[in-house]
Amino acid sequence: FAPAAHSAVETRLFDKINTKIDLDSPKVATMDKLSNGDKKVYCRCWQSGTFPLCDGSHMAHNKETGDNVGPLIVSVAKAEE
Amino acid sequence: FAPAAHSAVETRLFDKINTKIDLDSPKVATMDKLSNGDKKVYCRCWQSGTFPLCDGSHMAHNKETGDNVGPLIVSVAKAEE
Repeated sequence: FAPAAHSAVETRLFDKINTKIDLDSPKVATMDKLSNGDKKVYCRCWQSGTFPLCDGSHMAHNKETGDNVGPLIVSVAKAEE
Repeated sequence: FAPAAHSAVETRLFDKINTKIDLDSPKVATMDKLSNGDKKVYCRCWQSGTFPLCDGSHMAHNKETGDNVGPLIVSVAKAEE
C-alpha cells in the first residue's frame, strides 16, 4: 500500500508529533528529579492533559490512528532496599 | 491555513507517532529502574536508534517537520545529598 502523494506543506503538518504541548517553545525538553521510593509515569504521546506525566491519552490516540505508543514508567528503589 | 482534505486511511497513516519502534507490539510501554546518582535521557520522538534512550534524533525530526519535541531527562540525587 503506497500512501497517496501530497504536498510538501501537507507532509510537514501531518508528520508533527506534538500538536498540543508548549507549541511556542522551540524544543520541549523536560527535566525531572526523583528520590528514593518515587515512581512516575511519563507521557510519550504528547496528548496528555497532565504532561509531562501520562493521563492515559495514548489509549484514545492509538485507537484513532492504529498507533502503539505507550508511556515510560520510571521508579527508584526505596532507600533501605 | 486549512490542511487539504485527505482520505481516512491517509489520516491514520500520517497521524501515527511511532513508525519505527517495536511495530508488532500492541503498546510500547517502557519500565526503568534508577538508583541514586543516576541520570538518563529518554526519547519522546520515537525515532531514536537507542530507544528508550535519546540519541538526538529529535533534532532531525524537528528540522524536517517543524515540530518541537525534545527528550525527558530524569535524575536521582546522589545518596549523600
